[in-house]
Amino acid sequence: MSDTTHELARFIVDSGWQEVPANVRHEAKRALLNWLGCALGGCNDVTVDTALAALRDFSGAPHGQLIGRRERLDILNAAVINAISSNVLDFDDTHLSTVIHPTVPVAAAIVALADHTPFTGAQFLHAFILGVEAECRIGLAVTPEHYNVGWHITATCGVFGAAAACGKLLKLNAQQMTWALGIAATQSSGLTEMLGSMAKTYNMGHAARNGLMAALLARQGFTSSERALEAPRGFAHVLSPRCDLDSITTGLGTTWELTQNAYKPYPCGIVVHPIIDACLELRNKHGIVHDAIASIDLRVHPLVLTLTGNPAPRNGLEAKLSVQHCAAAACIFAAAGVKEFSDACVNDPATIALRSRVRPVVDNAIGKDAADVTVTLKDGTKHHCYVAHASGSLERPLSDDDIESKFRALAEWGFSTCNAYDVIELIWSFDNIRDAAALARTTVPSASAVARG
Amino acid sequence: MSDTTHELARFIVDSGWQEVPANVRHEAKRALLNWLGCALGGCNDVTVDTALAALRDFSGAPHGQLIGRRERLDILNAAVINAISSNVLDFDDTHLSTVIHPTVPVAAAIVALADHTPFTGAQFLHAFILGVEAECRIGLAVTPEHYNVGWHITATCGVFGAAAACGKLLKLNAQQMTWALGIAATQSSGLTEMLGSMAKTYNMGHAARNGLMAALLARQGFTSSERALEAPRGFAHVLSPRCDLDSITTGLGTTWELTQNAYKPYPCGIVVHPIIDACLELRNKHGIVHDAIASIDLRVHPLVLTLTGNPAPRNGLEAKLSVQHCAAAACIFAAAGVKEFSDACVNDPATIALRSRVRPVVDNAIGKDAADVTVTLKDGTKHHCYVAHASGSLERPLSDDDIESKFRALAEWGFSTCNAYDVIELIWSFDNIRDAAALARTTVPSASAVARG
Repeated sequence: MSDTTHELARFIVDSGWQEVPANVRHEAKRALLNWLGCALGGCNDVTVDTALAALRDFSGAPHGQLIGRRERLDILNAAVINAISSNVLDFDDTHLSTVIHPTVPVAAAIVALADHTPFTGAQFLHAFILGVEAECRIGLAVTPEHYNVGWHITATCGVFGAAAACGKLLKLNAQQMTWALGIAATQSSGLTEMLGSMAKTYNMGHAARNGLMAALLARQGFTSSERALEAPRGFAHVLSPRCDLDSITTGLGTTWELTQNAYKPYPCGIVVHPIIDACLELRNKHGIVHDAIASIDLRVHPLVLTLTGNPAPRNGLEAKLSVQHCAAAACIFAAAGVKEFSDACVNDPATIALRSRVRPVVDNAIGKDAADVTVTLKDGTKHHCYVAHASGSLERPLSDDDIESKFRALAEWGFSTCNAYDVIELIWSFDNIRDAAALARTTVPSASAVARG
Repeated sequence: MSDTTHELARFIVDSGWQEVPANVRHEAKRALLNWLGCALGGCNDVTVDTALAALRDFSGAPHGQLIGRRERLDILNAAVINAISSNVLDFDDTHLSTVIHPTVPVAAAIVALADHTPFTGAQFLHAFILGVEAECRIGLAVTPEHYNVGWHITATCGVFGAAAACGKLLKLNAQQMTWALGIAATQSSGLTEMLGSMAKTYNMGHAARNGLMAALLARQGFTSSERALEAPRGFAHVLSPRCDLDSITTGLGTTWELTQNAYKPYPCGIVVHPIIDACLELRNKHGIVHDAIASIDLRVHPLVLTLTGNPAPRNGLEAKLSVQHCAAAACIFAAAGVKEFSDACVNDPATIALRSRVRPVVDNAIGKDAADVTVTLKDGTKHHCYVAHASGSLERPLSDDDIESKFRALAEWGFSTCNAYDVIELIWSFDNIRDAAALARTTVPSASAVARG
């Protein structure tokens, strides 16, 4: 009989920082820098303001610092808001084999906890790495069926990652960690049906909060099933048509899922990235003027149309999941940053006109991070580009410098008045920081900056 | 294309109090009295204390009164605790065709909301009835497959009931109510794997809280999918192998699910009730002394063994789902109240000895609320009893007097110092009460009583 939940709990509890390889530690910093940039870029989004308006009145002791804002909420609510901030631009990282965005739920939970329980930067990084490990391995056990039937896997698995990371920082023993995973399992939720609405980001906030809650309950001795992952009525069997429980425990401590993490160059559905790469390359190489375009023909992986086939997005949120919008905007603006996913850009007459001339066709021979794009001009000229691997993929990863640039651009987009260079410096040396709460604190706008804003 | 979510939302928003039949209004009061008794009986349980220890530090403005206790938490956390209190004894009501315990998540949410937003007793009853309606109809759409695969249906559907009821009280419009149902859908969770542990009661608290949260978010304009129930990646298709969406909308406003509600005479799994009826009848009719019993042979519905086949429960929680314990305890103590599900009773040598002589056998011919019991004495004498319908079933419902007696017994069990007669009086006249917050307030122990305790 498999003993998956106990085995995973013991691994998390017993893991020592010295056993974590240097490349994994470095990847954790890259993930955090990327995540913090996303949070700074999104922290003043209307989705964040709306959630905050609902939560504010019910917040407890204001220990939890909101990233990029002056407000504090209790740490559970802060976890919700920081998860929303960092996910709302759809610019966060991706564990490619599961399509989990691993950092959001885990980091949002432990950044909040850092404002309540003191721990060092190294402890923070260690817990973060273990949280991502739990989350992604549980995701691997149910991939791809779980996502395909409609589960928002970052949320459903993220709650485990948040529970594991918070449990590590709260120094839970193996029994308590088992309960924390169990309480996480019974709170696991989130539907992909919410993609394109604000509730999609709430899935992330809910996962971060509930994982933290699970660890806090388990610490007090709140019991759960001890076979929450593997039991016939446990997470894996109930939430997936198929599961492979060995994925959760095989190679624990030897292989690290964070090394499979990728960072997005564009703030939209990752399956569209190679198409944007191709459009940008054609636009720049041939100096294409959008008025001259007769059609943009795309040959794409089947998932592209399933997830992002939307010829008429009504707003920025919907445009992130519209391959038609992405291709058109890249050809018009020679860019695909947060600005190209604003409501204004989506409703720009030029964008609307060109979107109607984007013609995506499924081609089963095209890989998930590949694309084949042909731009036909009104004069009959055809320009063609094939992208084998999207930028930001594991084959063409963003460099540390790329992630720094992305961070600075996002901080600027979100009107952050924090010193981006200070934050970057802090993260690269985070394993030597005494108080992990410094991470959120450095992002707070100064009083004078807010007054000016 | 079905438009289930919109249709349900519109019904809830448009429903008028005068359109609710008198028998349904009266059933709402019976349900509330039964629920409040359960909460008073459970409010000092170790599960409640443990959850409270974890939540207390993170509570916001203390508006939400805890039932039967002096503490207040913010209303979201109060909803969690009151749901746990009222479910922990497993004595709550049951909507028999879905096995949903309908009152817990809905009442816990709106009792909490009453401490924040003023509304009358009639408004409270109306919202409660509508919440139960939404919850049970959504349950009917996925019954029985949803529960059978491992979903804790009271939690997964209760979140909708809480959202609907809170949304009605917050005067959401149809658009906002649609979002509230959507935000509820994406938070729907809870595994039956947790049965027998504290986390099972947390499922209820989580549902009540999240339903309330959904309504609060929707009120601020937080958007969701508008087809959260019926879409291919919506609740019904994702969380159930089969669904019948018509159950949600057919006959809305004409048939009322609350009329299908039943109240338990015994605080344990409902499938065991006819067996307890039979054991009590045999014990009392024949003056059976437990030492004289050679065996207790049960012929039972298949679900009895699936849900409650446990010959060696280790504590009161597990005993509630042990048909062996229930039969043995009824024969020994001539009762099956909360005391017979205490840890002390479960570990009593006499109970342990007799439990080992209980022999349940599945018989497909036995109905879900029926049982066939034969007690064989050591001298060879056999006593036989067949129960066609369990007491507390729709065929043999508890009377108003029965529910009052149950309420008083539970209040006493939970060491409540509130005046049971006052509470009973309040509930029977609740449609004339100006401030619904009186409900929780009347259950608060007086300062002097606490000092004496």
